[in-house]
Amino acid sequence: MAEDKLMSRLSLNQITIDQWSLQEAVEGCLSHEVPWISVWRHKIKEIGLKQSKRLITDAGLDVSSVCRGGMFPAATAKDRAERIDDNKRAIEEAAELGTDTLVLVCGPSADRDIDTARKQVEEGIDQLVPYAKDYGVKLAIEPLHPMFAADRSVINTMDQASTIAEKYHPDEVGVIVDVYHVWWDPNLYQEINRAKGRILGFHVSDWKVPMADMFKGRAMMGEGVIEINRMRKAVEEAGYHGPIEVEIINQSLWDRDGNDVLQEVKQSFAKHV
Amino acid sequence: MAEDKLMSRLSLNQITIDQWSLQEAVEGCLSHEVPWISVWRHKIKEIGLKQSKRLITDAGLDVSSVCRGGMFPAATAKDRAERIDDNKRAIEEAAELGTDTLVLVCGPSADRDIDTARKQVEEGIDQLVPYAKDYGVKLAIEPLHPMFAADRSVINTMDQASTIAEKYHPDEVGVIVDVYHVWWDPNLYQEINRAKGRILGFHVSDWKVPMADMFKGRAMMGEGVIEINRMRKAVEEAGYHGPIEVEIINQSLWDRDGNDVLQEVKQSFAKHV
Repeated sequence: MAEDKLMSRLSLNQITIDQWSLQEAVEGCLSHEVPWISVWRHKIKEIGLKQSKRLITDAGLDVSSVCRGGMFPAATAKDRAERIDDNKRAIEEAAELGTDTLVLVCGPSADRDIDTARKQVEEGIDQLVPYAKDYGVKLAIEPLHPMFAADRSVINTMDQASTIAEKYHPDEVGVIVDVYHVWWDPNLYQEINRAKGRILGFHVSDWKVPMADMFKGRAMMGEGVIEINRMRKAVEEAGYHGPIEVEIINQSLWDRDGNDVLQEVKQSFAKHV
Repeated sequence: MAEDKLMSRLSLNQITIDQWSLQEAVEGCLSHEVPWISVWRHKIKEIGLKQSKRLITDAGLDVSSVCRGGMFPAATAKDRAERIDDNKRAIEEAAELGTDTLVLVCGPSADRDIDTARKQVEEGIDQLVPYAKDYGVKLAIEPLHPMFAADRSVINTMDQASTIAEKYHPDEVGVIVDVYHVWWDPNLYQEINRAKGRILGFHVSDWKVPMADMFKGRAMMGEGVIEINRMRKAVEEAGYHGPIEVEIINQSLWDRDGNDVLQEVKQSFAKHV
């Protein structure tokens, strides 16, 4: 893919400008000529799925993914079944919004037993695959940084994500490469290569020192230490040429005017991705 | 090793009660019957090596390790050579204080090029091995949690640490297993087993959610999600029966009376390690 087409791959992950409603985000993408959007479910919920679909369709925006399914581990079978049901709703929403990608943040353990939690993730995905397939939606396992192993996801490496995904057809289960979560991995480039044909998304932000907040501390591309451009090229060599989501979770961006943030996102994306 | 001997393995890592000078720490260990201490170099510096040695020898305390060498990557050859010199001083200090274990916190990259930084770590260790051997000191590579990859160490997994260590004799280079840094690793127990004969230390603390501070957020054993006892048994199966350092870096402990902290450390150690 030619470098001059890079901007046509820019996707606004809605959490980056969480102060915007879905309508504001759609309007922002239109006015800033951002062709893709990644939609969060709490934003869909605010106005309903029908209205969400109408906004996006009328704007002619493409949806790169829905965030997020997952959260599989739970203390009881009943709770785990409820999580599966919720994931089915997420699959339906993804299909309705015209994306084939549901991002999975797999969830933390209900207790200290992380091995069991990891098995529950595998079981949860296994239960969802046929349902997702019926809807034409792929399950995109996003490994989260190991610092989130206790509270967000017990899937923390590309190796784990690919090991699960490889049990299925590439049209069924794949992986997300988010630079913030995996940049430190000593096996990163081997793992990106291994995921060839299964990469369902590429997310960018940056890791800046010092990090004021583990969760809301992601930086604008170029402000930190991550070799974003190198990773983008590796992901392309592994066959991924789809949308690139800017997903920066940072309170200081939420406190600013959304249009200013999106302008900066575009500049930073053009320069550092 | 029998469970009733566990308390004879307790080592106070000095950083846990950083408000104490070395003299206060030595006196604290004596009065609380803690048989081991891990000494930090900034504490040695305060009173000098001779006086440090005298305090420890007079008290009859055993030193489990000196913290720390490492910090190998740097932008220029001159800077890297200075780091090597400083590591030689650390080796001399370890030998003088009667421990054969120098803990290596390997250091962050000088720029975005993490691969080169990792090579510089390998080169640095390679330069140190003969010097350390002359002093009867083993280099103990401590993998640090991936969330410290940008600012403290580019060695972030047991796999990395063992891959370097295996180039040398087990009497020359080994690894530290610190529960806080490695508990999330999907390959943890295989890696502990792989490190058989090379484990030079076992450090305990806990990971509590939410984590207020990435650096100073470690919790008392039992307060978090880490399967400490399971890891201790795995480390013992891999042949390690030496001192167990309590290394809790937490501002709230530093704000308290050191004797209260040490009392709590002992109780928590007996119950959860």
